[in-house]
Amino acid sequence: MDTNAEIPFEMRLDARAREVETLLRSLLDTHLLPGEIARPERLLAAMRHGVLNGGKRLRPFLVVESAALFGAGARHIEALRAAAALECVHCYSLIHDDLPAMDDDDLRRGQPTVHRAFDEAAAILAGDALLTLAFDIICDDAADNGAAPLPAATRLALARGLARAAGLGGMAGGQMLDLTAQHDAPDEAGIIRLQAMKTGALIRYACEAGAIVAGAPESDRERLAEFGSAIGLAFQLADDLLDVTADAGRLGKATGKDAAAGKATLAALHGPDWARRQLHGLVEQASSLLEPYGERAAILKQAARFVAQRDR
Amino acid sequence: MDTNAEIPFEMRLDARAREVETLLRSLLDTHLLPGEIARPERLLAAMRHGVLNGGKRLRPFLVVESAALFGAGARHIEALRAAAALECVHCYSLIHDDLPAMDDDDLRRGQPTVHRAFDEAAAILAGDALLTLAFDIICDDAADNGAAPLPAATRLALARGLARAAGLGGMAGGQMLDLTAQHDAPDEAGIIRLQAMKTGALIRYACEAGAIVAGAPESDRERLAEFGSAIGLAFQLADDLLDVTADAGRLGKATGKDAAAGKATLAALHGPDWARRQLHGLVEQASSLLEPYGERAAILKQAARFVAQRDR
Repeated sequence: MDTNAEIPFEMRLDARAREVETLLRSLLDTHLLPGEIARPERLLAAMRHGVLNGGKRLRPFLVVESAALFGAGARHIEALRAAAALECVHCYSLIHDDLPAMDDDDLRRGQPTVHRAFDEAAAILAGDALLTLAFDIICDDAADNGAAPLPAATRLALARGLARAAGLGGMAGGQMLDLTAQHDAPDEAGIIRLQAMKTGALIRYACEAGAIVAGAPESDRERLAEFGSAIGLAFQLADDLLDVTADAGRLGKATGKDAAAGKATLAALHGPDWARRQLHGLVEQASSLLEPYGERAAILKQAARFVAQRDR
Repeated sequence: MDTNAEIPFEMRLDARAREVETLLRSLLDTHLLPGEIARPERLLAAMRHGVLNGGKRLRPFLVVESAALFGAGARHIEALRAAAALECVHCYSLIHDDLPAMDDDDLRRGQPTVHRAFDEAAAILAGDALLTLAFDIICDDAADNGAAPLPAATRLALARGLARAAGLGGMAGGQMLDLTAQHDAPDEAGIIRLQAMKTGALIRYACEAGAIVAGAPESDRERLAEFGSAIGLAFQLADDLLDVTADAGRLGKATGKDAAAGKATLAALHGPDWARRQLHGLVEQASSLLEPYGERAAILKQAARFVAQRDR
């Protein structure tokens, strides 16, 4: 039993989600930053629709809790800002992935997707502006009002890491591989690479970013990044497993969707029993990476189990 | 007469264009940066198609020549990198603006647009990945091999300025205003704001970025930004004037396109004579801003005249 087990994990996740949403709401208000000419109402509304839609905020949670692991209390505001920036990138990717030219989804979390609530042009621009805003948030030292302001080199490391996780060699590249995989099925190594890019890179970055904000040494940054990689794999495997096994009613969406779309997944390739064993192994691996931090890492270990065991 | 008038301006512009294109080509090769997992071939090809298409490279020229004004010889490579980053942002905006949901253009500079040469999904992702790459280029201090490496605070100022010029309160916001203007005609103040955001912000930033790279004092940065604003206005006004007056054969594209699309422009509102007087005034204003720099500013003054007098 973890000592922190008295506070249910999901309550803690919710509390962090509310904190980052308050910040996201203030970053998406009508207040102009220096150098901005105007914030067009319709674009702002489309951005809010894509961001303030009640996600679990898992990635921001990982940033903030990874920072807290290294005692970044004085830098909590900066950790939240890095978390908000990452969530802007995650939400931009969902807005663009939902477009008719990509996955063509009308609904996300029971609400119309941005291009359905507005139009395609607004959805494209809202995604573009959110991606841009993410770098603005990280690079804006004028907003730095924490007790321990971030050194410029730390901000740069955050921005560079985010760019690399999100771009050509990370998430955007992974989405391209996912699109081509639908008519040119990848082999097992190809599936692993695709998933490491499309969903893994941002989750890995979330954990590493917390360590960067906290000013943790290089070896700890690397350890947290590896932890992030393990739970990124678990996240995707749990998702694929649900698609194979879940009953559609509990999941709240159609199952068997991957197979129908011709998407090869590891869970489909090796079967649900293999996938469950893998998930167990990934949680073990993630937890053992955090052993050096003892009880302080209890929350992050819970996060690893949560990611692997989620049933929707 | 400028002392540098012996070298025709367009030759100088071409030479700088080739220099930045060499860098862009190397940034878009198959070489993986640390942290990148793979560079998917099709995405890379779509990005190259959108970037290496023979533009005038006016914005990169302004970055490099503004840096050179402050004697940034030792930082020439860094000025080129900032210029390449800005060009990535400019090209991403063209790729997304050309999409069917936006301006729906099949051709750009006589070549198929990215969504015509590839498909819409590839064009959306190529734009996303170029925008992301721009911040990677600026924030990557590992690539710093100049004689006078950029301080981290300088890189941060470049990244923040780029984000603010390109995002919600700048270029992306301007594109949204442009789309809404087609069925809700703005007044004169609205047209000016729209243009300052859609095309002005990046040109203003180009000139300011050069001063930032060179480590120029705040007052010079502000002066160069104002110079950029003046030529940004001239750039748009010359464009609008051509649409009203040029003969379609010389322009190589249809004229009267703005009026047909219901786009209000200042040249259409006040007539060509007014527009020509304004252009003359803007070039005067831009040149007088550079008076303190004497003959060293001759190239940038030529750039202002070039922008105002271009006939295609």
